[in-house]
Amino acid sequence: MYDLIIIGGGPAGYNAADHAGHAGLKTLVIEERALGGVCLNEGCIPTKTLLYSAKIYDYAKHSQDYGVKFENATIDHSFVIDRKAKVIKQLVSGVGAKLKKAGVEVVKAQAVIKERTADGFVVTADGKEYVGKQLLICTGSNPALPPIDGLADSLKSGYALTNREVLELKEIPKDIVIVGGGVIGLEMASYFNSVGSKVYVVEMLNKIAGPIDNEISTMLQKEYAQKGVEFILGAKVTSIKNNAVTYEKDGKLTEIKSDYALVSIGRRARTQGLGLENIGVILERGAIVTNEYGKTNVPGVWAAGDVNGKSMLAHTAYREGEVCINNILGKKDRINYNSIPSVIYTNPEVACVGETEETAKQKGLDVKIQTVTLKYSGRYVAENEHGNGVVKIITDKKHNNIVGVTIIGTYASEMIYGAAMMVETEMRVADVQKLVFPHPTVCEVIREAMFL
Amino acid sequence: MYDLIIIGGGPAGYNAADHAGHAGLKTLVIEERALGGVCLNEGCIPTKTLLYSAKIYDYAKHSQDYGVKFENATIDHSFVIDRKAKVIKQLVSGVGAKLKKAGVEVVKAQAVIKERTADGFVVTADGKEYVGKQLLICTGSNPALPPIDGLADSLKSGYALTNREVLELKEIPKDIVIVGGGVIGLEMASYFNSVGSKVYVVEMLNKIAGPIDNEISTMLQKEYAQKGVEFILGAKVTSIKNNAVTYEKDGKLTEIKSDYALVSIGRRARTQGLGLENIGVILERGAIVTNEYGKTNVPGVWAAGDVNGKSMLAHTAYREGEVCINNILGKKDRINYNSIPSVIYTNPEVACVGETEETAKQKGLDVKIQTVTLKYSGRYVAENEHGNGVVKIITDKKHNNIVGVTIIGTYASEMIYGAAMMVETEMRVADVQKLVFPHPTVCEVIREAMFL
Repeated sequence: MYDLIIIGGGPAGYNAADHAGHAGLKTLVIEERALGGVCLNEGCIPTKTLLYSAKIYDYAKHSQDYGVKFENATIDHSFVIDRKAKVIKQLVSGVGAKLKKAGVEVVKAQAVIKERTADGFVVTADGKEYVGKQLLICTGSNPALPPIDGLADSLKSGYALTNREVLELKEIPKDIVIVGGGVIGLEMASYFNSVGSKVYVVEMLNKIAGPIDNEISTMLQKEYAQKGVEFILGAKVTSIKNNAVTYEKDGKLTEIKSDYALVSIGRRARTQGLGLENIGVILERGAIVTNEYGKTNVPGVWAAGDVNGKSMLAHTAYREGEVCINNILGKKDRINYNSIPSVIYTNPEVACVGETEETAKQKGLDVKIQTVTLKYSGRYVAENEHGNGVVKIITDKKHNNIVGVTIIGTYASEMIYGAAMMVETEMRVADVQKLVFPHPTVCEVIREAMFL
Repeated sequence: MYDLIIIGGGPAGYNAADHAGHAGLKTLVIEERALGGVCLNEGCIPTKTLLYSAKIYDYAKHSQDYGVKFENATIDHSFVIDRKAKVIKQLVSGVGAKLKKAGVEVVKAQAVIKERTADGFVVTADGKEYVGKQLLICTGSNPALPPIDGLADSLKSGYALTNREVLELKEIPKDIVIVGGGVIGLEMASYFNSVGSKVYVVEMLNKIAGPIDNEISTMLQKEYAQKGVEFILGAKVTSIKNNAVTYEKDGKLTEIKSDYALVSIGRRARTQGLGLENIGVILERGAIVTNEYGKTNVPGVWAAGDVNGKSMLAHTAYREGEVCINNILGKKDRINYNSIPSVIYTNPEVACVGETEETAKQKGLDVKIQTVTLKYSGRYVAENEHGNGVVKIITDKKHNNIVGVTIIGTYASEMIYGAAMMVETEMRVADVQKLVFPHPTVCEVIREAMFL
């Protein structure tokens, strides 16, 4: 008998378990694959490992601009893939150790919710039954795989890949078609472009990078177009078969033959086969419906992370896990979804938080919009020959507070949390003006923008 | 007749001028060398240009760890020095353009304050007289050059260098003795170590990196000792002559012969020859005494930047310049010196803000001290084989608020402004816990520490 059974050991699940364990709840995590979830095993971390190797390789191409010369630069893709496995192994074992320290039990098996009894929720895993007074569902998401002609067979044959298989390729493809120009698609496009593949990105929308500010998304596209990535926007993929992707654009069908096709058109909450129907948990478009505290419609059943279909980001999941545990412990807690940053780890990086120009307009906010070059930063100039980075700041004119920040350029990923603090705490322009930023840094430009 | 005459066009002066000009004050800047001051011409920016080239060169040495191979990596020091000049030129002309846009006049000459008359303060420059209703002194600082035996002659002969000459060396020295293990000394040690010089750092104190937290300073020293820098601590330099530095340690004299000696033992406010005595401005240990608003003892005379002897950091100067202008304009303004971040651009970088373990104890604060490995960050692990970075957090137990943060590791420089916001706004641990940090980033470890 457990106080809490958590199904799924990804960012939502393992962090919730850690907090629950330390708070004294007798906690069980049931995870069918590896602890760490998609993020650690097939997502955020492995891609960053690959992208860092690519970045170092990229330096070689441009190092002459900085007075450094190399000969015969090569990247050993299979070494990179092996190293990635080592990094994952280290971090997964770190998560395991953390849970052990928190006194959390872990069962490695597929979990199915059987029923609700007077004692609690009964979950079966590996032929055994476990009973928990409360239940937290953190089963994450799967890649969306729509019924495109030939896709199922192409996945079987190994021509079509999802985020999982693409990270296991043993050789650098000569060419790869990436279906879907969102975060995953762009990060993989960045990697394969760096290591020498011909990359095509086919995207249904007329822009890449999904909800990112249009102006910045256009800048990112331009950067990668210059590096040789071919973008085909406003195009609907009609088939993925015979080692080719066919798309329809402006009423015309075009076929691209390639070594591989990566399908990265979004992710869907993983709710099937879990037995949610056995306890009457309500879903909406396949995702578990939760309120701002992480509660489902069934008392005692909570959900956090991608499975609630809200934000599909590891760090949202992480915090949602905490929110659920705090509320389970009777400490009222909720997330402000408006101040959650997000990052695309391309080179240059893109990071943003809060409103974009487009969402601000949609919401009818009366805003000041500033796009400020990073060349105001001496460090940026020192480190970026031919760099075109900017920071874009959206200020609500009513209270003169910062409601949105988007950055394209070096260090964007590590700078955005400060901007998220500004959005979260509703800092006004005058407040930021009084902060002292270190010199010389790229982040200084955020402050500089407050005076323009 | 000017509303305001600013003597010195460094970070304090040019930023003050920019603000004054935009606020409608008829403003004159008198600068005897180049706009941008030491920071832009002989300090922050040129060193960062050099250090970035060194960093790229360093990647070559360690790239195999990440699956990237190069042959025959070389660094072209004279190219690096030429590029530095180009970067400076671009940024100096940017400052010039900025001032022009703000309607600020610039005179390039040495300024001497002649007298105070009924009209205002009379300043002579290049044989002409200029009168300003108010006066802002931003003359910065000079390297401290104590009366060490032989130093004057060694500076003349070119054996001894200051921060200025060291940036003009045409060739990589075989060996260099760096006298003074503060920020400038360590950054130059880092550069010369990377490019292949044998580097000695002779420091009078028993630690490097001045006011940096002892634990972190020891870690930094260890990193560079492993890279081959020789540290001689608790040693007093007795002579710099005959192409050798002699120091006394534990009563024993030792001589190190070398190609060059860099003297970087601190900086002194530049107040001599300015005519400050003609209007009765009070100095203390050679620096202009100012209150928290930037006012000197003489009504209408203000001072900002290194010349006030307070913080000796470009970004402090920058903000002090603004503070003076705001107060001149009647908008009460002051700096909180306690939340000014500082950075050492070694590799790994060190950045800090607020209290260290030592200052917290000196002040008798009841604090919680945590030193947390950056290996909690998946990104850090992905990008740093053999990395030992940490973030050290000092929390005041009384209100459970963050009073100090020190980071050693990648991205520290661009992460610290967020920590400075926490210190400045007196954020409590519970406030930071509710923030969402992007994943995977190194900065996440700051948040992670809030739960330990």
